[in-house]
Amino acid sequence: MLVNTIGYFFGSQRRDSLQHSLRRTLQLLSILFCAFKRPLVIILLLTALSVEVKAQQATWIWYPGDFEVWLGNKMQNRRTERTVFLPPFWKLDNHYVLIDFHRDYDLAAAEEVDIFVEGRYNIKLDGKGIEGTPSRITIPAGKHKLSLKVFNQSSVPAIYVKGKTVISDSSWLLTYEDKEWIDETGKASDQSGTTWLNAGFWNFNSPGELPSKVSLAVKPQSAVSTAKLNNSLVLDFGKETFGFIKLHGLKGKGNVGIYYGESKEEALATKTCETLDRLQVNLSQGTDSVMELSKAFRYVNVQLDGGVSLDSVSMLYEYLPVEDRGSFRCSDEQVNKIYDVAKYTFHLNTREFFIDGIKRDRWIWSGDAYQSYLMNYYLFFDSPSVTRTLLALRGKDPVTSHINTIMDYSFYWFLGIYDYYQYTGDKNFIKQFYPRMQSLMEYCLSRRNKNGMMEGLAGDWVFIDWAEGLSKKGEVSFEQLLLCRSLEAMAISAGVANDAAGATRYQQLATDLKSKIFAAYWNESKQALVHSRVDGKPTENVTRYANMFAIFFNYLNDAQKLGVKQNVLLNDKVQKITTPYMRFYELEALCAMGEQPYVLKEMKDYWGGMLNLGATSFWEEYNPSKKGAEHYAMYGREFGKSLCHAWGASPIYLLGKYYLGVKPTAPGYETYVVEPALGGLQWMRGTVPTPNGEISLDCTTKQIKVKGAEGNGTLRFKSKTKPVSKGSVITAKGNGVYEMTMEKGKEYTVSYSAL
Amino acid sequence: MLVNTIGYFFGSQRRDSLQHSLRRTLQLLSILFCAFKRPLVIILLLTALSVEVKAQQATWIWYPGDFEVWLGNKMQNRRTERTVFLPPFWKLDNHYVLIDFHRDYDLAAAEEVDIFVEGRYNIKLDGKGIEGTPSRITIPAGKHKLSLKVFNQSSVPAIYVKGKTVISDSSWLLTYEDKEWIDETGKASDQSGTTWLNAGFWNFNSPGELPSKVSLAVKPQSAVSTAKLNNSLVLDFGKETFGFIKLHGLKGKGNVGIYYGESKEEALATKTCETLDRLQVNLSQGTDSVMELSKAFRYVNVQLDGGVSLDSVSMLYEYLPVEDRGSFRCSDEQVNKIYDVAKYTFHLNTREFFIDGIKRDRWIWSGDAYQSYLMNYYLFFDSPSVTRTLLALRGKDPVTSHINTIMDYSFYWFLGIYDYYQYTGDKNFIKQFYPRMQSLMEYCLSRRNKNGMMEGLAGDWVFIDWAEGLSKKGEVSFEQLLLCRSLEAMAISAGVANDAAGATRYQQLATDLKSKIFAAYWNESKQALVHSRVDGKPTENVTRYANMFAIFFNYLNDAQKLGVKQNVLLNDKVQKITTPYMRFYELEALCAMGEQPYVLKEMKDYWGGMLNLGATSFWEEYNPSKKGAEHYAMYGREFGKSLCHAWGASPIYLLGKYYLGVKPTAPGYETYVVEPALGGLQWMRGTVPTPNGEISLDCTTKQIKVKGAEGNGTLRFKSKTKPVSKGSVITAKGNGVYEMTMEKGKEYTVSYSAL
Repeated sequence: MLVNTIGYFFGSQRRDSLQHSLRRTLQLLSILFCAFKRPLVIILLLTALSVEVKAQQATWIWYPGDFEVWLGNKMQNRRTERTVFLPPFWKLDNHYVLIDFHRDYDLAAAEEVDIFVEGRYNIKLDGKGIEGTPSRITIPAGKHKLSLKVFNQSSVPAIYVKGKTVISDSSWLLTYEDKEWIDETGKASDQSGTTWLNAGFWNFNSPGELPSKVSLAVKPQSAVSTAKLNNSLVLDFGKETFGFIKLHGLKGKGNVGIYYGESKEEALATKTCETLDRLQVNLSQGTDSVMELSKAFRYVNVQLDGGVSLDSVSMLYEYLPVEDRGSFRCSDEQVNKIYDVAKYTFHLNTREFFIDGIKRDRWIWSGDAYQSYLMNYYLFFDSPSVTRTLLALRGKDPVTSHINTIMDYSFYWFLGIYDYYQYTGDKNFIKQFYPRMQSLMEYCLSRRNKNGMMEGLAGDWVFIDWAEGLSKKGEVSFEQLLLCRSLEAMAISAGVANDAAGATRYQQLATDLKSKIFAAYWNESKQALVHSRVDGKPTENVTRYANMFAIFFNYLNDAQKLGVKQNVLLNDKVQKITTPYMRFYELEALCAMGEQPYVLKEMKDYWGGMLNLGATSFWEEYNPSKKGAEHYAMYGREFGKSLCHAWGASPIYLLGKYYLGVKPTAPGYETYVVEPALGGLQWMRGTVPTPNGEISLDCTTKQIKVKGAEGNGTLRFKSKTKPVSKGSVITAKGNGVYEMTMEKGKEYTVSYSAL
Repeated sequence: MLVNTIGYFFGSQRRDSLQHSLRRTLQLLSILFCAFKRPLVIILLLTALSVEVKAQQATWIWYPGDFEVWLGNKMQNRRTERTVFLPPFWKLDNHYVLIDFHRDYDLAAAEEVDIFVEGRYNIKLDGKGIEGTPSRITIPAGKHKLSLKVFNQSSVPAIYVKGKTVISDSSWLLTYEDKEWIDETGKASDQSGTTWLNAGFWNFNSPGELPSKVSLAVKPQSAVSTAKLNNSLVLDFGKETFGFIKLHGLKGKGNVGIYYGESKEEALATKTCETLDRLQVNLSQGTDSVMELSKAFRYVNVQLDGGVSLDSVSMLYEYLPVEDRGSFRCSDEQVNKIYDVAKYTFHLNTREFFIDGIKRDRWIWSGDAYQSYLMNYYLFFDSPSVTRTLLALRGKDPVTSHINTIMDYSFYWFLGIYDYYQYTGDKNFIKQFYPRMQSLMEYCLSRRNKNGMMEGLAGDWVFIDWAEGLSKKGEVSFEQLLLCRSLEAMAISAGVANDAAGATRYQQLATDLKSKIFAAYWNESKQALVHSRVDGKPTENVTRYANMFAIFFNYLNDAQKLGVKQNVLLNDKVQKITTPYMRFYELEALCAMGEQPYVLKEMKDYWGGMLNLGATSFWEEYNPSKKGAEHYAMYGREFGKSLCHAWGASPIYLLGKYYLGVKPTAPGYETYVVEPALGGLQWMRGTVPTPNGEISLDCTTKQIKVKGAEGNGTLRFKSKTKPVSKGSVITAKGNGVYEMTMEKGKEYTVSYSAL
């Protein structure tokens, strides 16, 4: 009954009481950032492990995609840079404010149903309004249609319905009344002309867990060391972390400055550190105060005016509780350490959404998020985090610019859909959001030039990578490649959404474009795709981008692949990649070409290099030639670099997909391969999550133990000797390659001899 | 400084304090609709008389159209029907939540500037962020760019800036960052690729008048009589009115029911009256209580449980303060009474927007609003009310259905633009919203059938009028006519917006459609446009709709006009019009054909008929054959009919445009005609407002006195004798018609002899 009484009419009254009692507690603390703006009742977000909430679990529901857009606004508008509010610089969309919810029931017996709503609402039974805004209704036995209509301007219209069998879940149908069908007499009909979608939901499974009050979990943490000097305290929390600083026993009159540092140097650099808080204190007795906004830091420098004192400083670590379902351990302790720090880095950046970095930008960037989706499939397999991020990025129609204003980032969105379907097999998501895929794709297609190629128009940011002198002029091959894969994603999605004409059209567009790409960019003498075509003429410039994507998109024949490997990937004369962002794909391409030993060495050099410098999370960029605090500078700012960036965590993906070697070959792991590659390791073992289970592997140079909880697997491996597995048939494929079929739930042990 | 301290960070704290003190006052009053939800600080809306706020008047500004969309949501989601929340049944749009504001200045001297913001914000000077969220900044002398970026999810991002010369007004440029231009180096440039529009504003001219707290003016009013019976009070407020009921000295424990009636019968019919409030009272001492929602009524029936008592009942009349700038008086007292009651009816329905009726639907219906625009030009000439209504109706892209889901109502929106430009000459509005005109028109054009005609598709409501047996099948001539005029509006607007190609295209589409209309529907033997074409064949059915619009659209030649007048308008065998809605156009067509004497008689019968039944405002529908309380029924409900409907006020328009005879002939009254027609009256006098002045007329059968404050006028009149005006040239046009040119600001007296 709680929520209902804090529904529309009593909304502010109830909130007042809560805040009033908070105010009583905090009334003496007059600080710049009012701590009580953050709800003190922390709602734990228990992450659903499966794609859909099962029947008989009542949950808060809303128009699909709307909560994600709303939450995206909330989260992306929390960033400050040295106290200056720093919001995104692209169009933000909004939820629909008026939503019609309904579901048809056939009840064996009458039942009482409790109704909780976020917004002003009405309830209709069989189309007839029930007086007032009741919190409990009785539905008689038999066939009945229960409808609610909810208006909410400031947050998402949402309902929670709970009876014995009547419950709010994804089976409810919703419309924002995009169109209305009126019959000949002018009366509203059954609304058959409107578009009805299945309800969206997450994990708000009790009446009190209001979607509008969403907040991540927190737990108290203490510093590992504190240095006191005059009126300042410098705290070290032992490793990169994220949360709300809490000042205990704050007292007196004057100013407090809190300077955050991902490095000690940053926390001490009060004039150039990236984030800080300023408080004005006037407190006659010691009071605890929690900062309003959570921040990224390892070190915190608290500076107090002479008249101000405090007892101690701690923090509330803020996190999304997601379970590690993937794992990796091997014979190389440095690789294990890399995996662990990558995991922690990825945890820190997996929040309301997959964000780029926890210090900055704390925004949702499609290119960064795309890599997080891939890592997620090998660690959390948390589909809601993927769909939340995809939906927030996509926003609403009309499309007025590329996602994040970047051409490549629109394409990564489609690539994200492609992979999401491949890993999860979630047809419902594709069906529901196919119209949004269509409108974004039509926007992209409408911006092709007269040759049918993508070329930057006014308002387009052709990004590719941060790399000096990288040309964005003309028709860049990399962008055409991404469009081609996006069209393939559309063809598959059209099939899922039962749009046969669309499937044919998108596949044809993809096929045509692929031919054009090879005609325009493949340079036979260079054995590579060239970087671009300007004024109809291919340039002579070869870069790694298109070439490495062509490999793992499987767009090259074997000869071309070898040519690219020798002439581009392993060719030091071709401009090197310096960002972990593109390093991700470069190493993936090398792995796809069987270069696991080389990649393992690179991994140990690059990520190991950061660890050697004391990194506790992986960075936005790492250049071994720099020294000391030089590492912290970027974008022309002394501490501009993020020391905890999602794209730094790519070993999770590489180790899972190319060393454990697990990947789906049909949507949702209906079929999959396990293709272990030790890459020079003595042994490795680990698990890779699948929609409803996991695939486990334990691999030495002599024995492979493998088991898959669901789907039909193929174990593919190389052996110097003829391998043996008791009770299984192993087929030789030539060149020392063997394959074995794996049944669901059965453990296999193979004796072999690693090449 | 007030607003700033209640800006983002302290938002809820400040609101709490206000509501806390209210709660102290009201804490004993536990009523269902919390009175204190309505802000007690009433902000008077002082209506701007001119189209643009002049420089040096600081005002709250926002993204143009956004406040209107937001306010439309707020207002249209306040309706209840017997306590059941009754929101609109079409898509509602939303404001942009993140807005970039800027203006370039060249200051002679440094100046201090106060900043007030609704939302979380930053301030940049010459692109550099200023720390924190300051409420006062100093801008040095010289050239500087002042920028603010504001995020606000629940209401419209808005700013109020006030220095000596630096002020927020419509000269500021705003973007929602529809697209971003990034230069070759990947850095954000001057955003030349984004779309910048001039700021929107209304009349929030001081820091404390927050747009988010918008509320109409109120004043206390008392009942003219109160009948007490046991535990009930029946109050009569003397005439139709609108506002918040206030219970004085409420005390005791039990239920209170408040039943509203536009008629006494309705207030007494507690089981079938359309609106009511229910309170649960538990008060140990007498307390005043104001209802949360304002209602339409003349009578109020307050029923108290035995344990509850009160001292008295009054009301707060709620209204938009708009000035009467037009006037009309004549020799017929009944016509004067009709004019006065029409005026009052129109005032009651001119609120946040031009609404249909005050009891219901209290929504913005495009067809109803279109008539209000026209009345407005002859009474208030309040352009903000027109543009607010047009913008709220239009909403945002994408267009997913017709306005209000009705095909005709999309077209009335274009007609509203056509007239708005003609009456006001406001080019800026056309320029700013031309893209929204384009996208709505493209939606309409995309729904033409293979013959290029509008035909109802799934989701379209072809309304025309409430009339029994009216066919909506096939290609209805009325809809094609409205589309044709809409295309003409687009052609004119394209010209204003400097879209030459668009102007040509829309004009060509209009010309082609007009030819098609006459080829398809003009029946030479019937001398009329037929109602529709079904399966390519014109029907034999003649209705009034297309024919009367063809007259005042001036689509007919003189012979056709006469044919239509005789065979349709004055032909009783053609199905009669019963709604004042279409009666408006029928009488207009007759006036346009010079039938003022006939129309005057009709007016006295129809509107006079309502007055004879005691009407204090004009009704949604009037059928003289009904008796007593039968008049109050509609839509199958005993009191379903609205007794105060905007479309009932059309005499304001007819008397101004066709009796006083004033209308613009070029945008904004740059040129105009005054064509007085007494229509059987002995004398009449009145004023018609123009953008910056008024045209006054005093006309008897022998003398015409006329004066226009702006523009170049033409007085056109009929006289039996040769008219004389001292110092002016009067030209005979034949058939007793004379014309005289009028200069700005000069009063003319003409002696003549009325025909």
